[in-house]
Amino acid sequence: MLFIIGLGLSDENDITVKGLEIVKRASRVYLEAYTSILLVGIDVLEEFYGRNVIIADREMVESSSDDILQDAQTHDIAFLVVGDPFGATTHSDLVLRARAKNIPTTIIPNASIMSAIGATGLQLYNFGQTVSMVFFTETWKPTSFYHRIRENRSIGLHTLLLLDIKVKEASPENLARGRRVYEPPRYMTVSQCAQQMIDTEKIMSENGEGGVYSKESLAVGAARVGGATEKFLCGTLEQLCSSDDILGKPLHSLVLLGQRTHELEYEYLKAFAIDPLELDKIWKKNYERK
Amino acid sequence: MLFIIGLGLSDENDITVKGLEIVKRASRVYLEAYTSILLVGIDVLEEFYGRNVIIADREMVESSSDDILQDAQTHDIAFLVVGDPFGATTHSDLVLRARAKNIPTTIIPNASIMSAIGATGLQLYNFGQTVSMVFFTETWKPTSFYHRIRENRSIGLHTLLLLDIKVKEASPENLARGRRVYEPPRYMTVSQCAQQMIDTEKIMSENGEGGVYSKESLAVGAARVGGATEKFLCGTLEQLCSSDDILGKPLHSLVLLGQRTHELEYEYLKAFAIDPLELDKIWKKNYERK
Repeated sequence: MLFIIGLGLSDENDITVKGLEIVKRASRVYLEAYTSILLVGIDVLEEFYGRNVIIADREMVESSSDDILQDAQTHDIAFLVVGDPFGATTHSDLVLRARAKNIPTTIIPNASIMSAIGATGLQLYNFGQTVSMVFFTETWKPTSFYHRIRENRSIGLHTLLLLDIKVKEASPENLARGRRVYEPPRYMTVSQCAQQMIDTEKIMSENGEGGVYSKESLAVGAARVGGATEKFLCGTLEQLCSSDDILGKPLHSLVLLGQRTHELEYEYLKAFAIDPLELDKIWKKNYERK
Repeated sequence: MLFIIGLGLSDENDITVKGLEIVKRASRVYLEAYTSILLVGIDVLEEFYGRNVIIADREMVESSSDDILQDAQTHDIAFLVVGDPFGATTHSDLVLRARAKNIPTTIIPNASIMSAIGATGLQLYNFGQTVSMVFFTETWKPTSFYHRIRENRSIGLHTLLLLDIKVKEASPENLARGRRVYEPPRYMTVSQCAQQMIDTEKIMSENGEGGVYSKESLAVGAARVGGATEKFLCGTLEQLCSSDDILGKPLHSLVLLGQRTHELEYEYLKAFAIDPLELDKIWKKNYERK
């Protein structure tokens, strides 16, 4: 049996009782370590489980899944995923490969950022499609996220932006030379995301396709959701461009507010205001009862 | 401290290790028991925790929250919620009341149906806003869900429908007479939901507002998501109108497919087909590469 087990969002204690029992008795334990991270290291997990944990990087999961699935017809294999197994990153491809080998699978769900973001006080019923924000480069500034936000905002909905993670990535130079040398991990921050959003709005406006949001649009920056040091900040995109010092370490996410809001959402958000007076002014002008 | 602790979706073992530790040492333990249910009874939870658990019905949470929050400035109170504390049902009102009394709160996230529904193989990035489906009565057939599905479908997105639960509800007659006599609990099934959807489409079409979906629209019926007896069925709304025997006991949910689909989604869904040939035909005609 292949068990795909969600670890939740923060530390070793966020695994479920059911998940922990499986980890303790599985023949092999893998940790998917390229789409998200916990706030603790693998050594903490190994100590907590009393087990050796094998890091599964993108290469292993995408190209060497046979190694992971080996003997799973007769042995229990645990494949650990930060968050929920089918949350922000879907592991349906691994399940499909298991199915093709007649290996039964069991999913152990857990908290995902896609539901835990409700801790901002924003109602999950008011969220549209989730979008990803990647690190822009000089030559690559994809704008697909912008069109999806436009769709959400056209019907008044909030948008959760999941921010890019670069783990074990090679530089173009090393990649071209086939060298297995990797850059240090990078995690996009709320400020980087807000700046890229403002930059994109500028470019789109120059092309006559703009107007989806502005520097004054309200958003919530979220850091380490579900953890003991969880932190939220509510302000304009412009204010959030310099919020990293307060938000602190990764992982960060951002919610861009839609205009279909509920009074209770505002009551809740106020506690996270960067500038309460400014927030109140913009809320009343652009969000309240829209 | 007020701890609001997600229990996950299925049984007593779905609580996180962190959550269980808090339950074991809290001064009082409440279970919110009117918006969702686990697949096991409160007696199983009490035995597993080694604790007495106080049922918190709607009346208590909405009108007597002072009782729940009593002494929480100096004692740890655990308030248990099926799924995630901020998932389908938000408990932000309870947090706001705690804040007003200067009671610190901690949220312990867990799996929510809003992310666990990814186990259908449908990508969470392709979901629009979630909608609720209530039991229709002779005189009350709200259509707000229909307009929200229209919004989602207009941009190609899937819609998760959360199905009505009636727990400890009084009949209009008993309510009018002020009698505390309650009806047996009722949980909406996938078949009931699919039938109400088809009925609503008919009414809206007669009013010239129809055309959002049809009997041939594809949907996935989901039962006991995250549990050992989890069951999915993929077919047309018409086929799902008679799927309850196969889906079995509550809780049920339904996903109406949008037309922005991914090949991998279909690969995954095929295993749940009510009629694989029919599914293939409709997929190719109306969903593939749309």
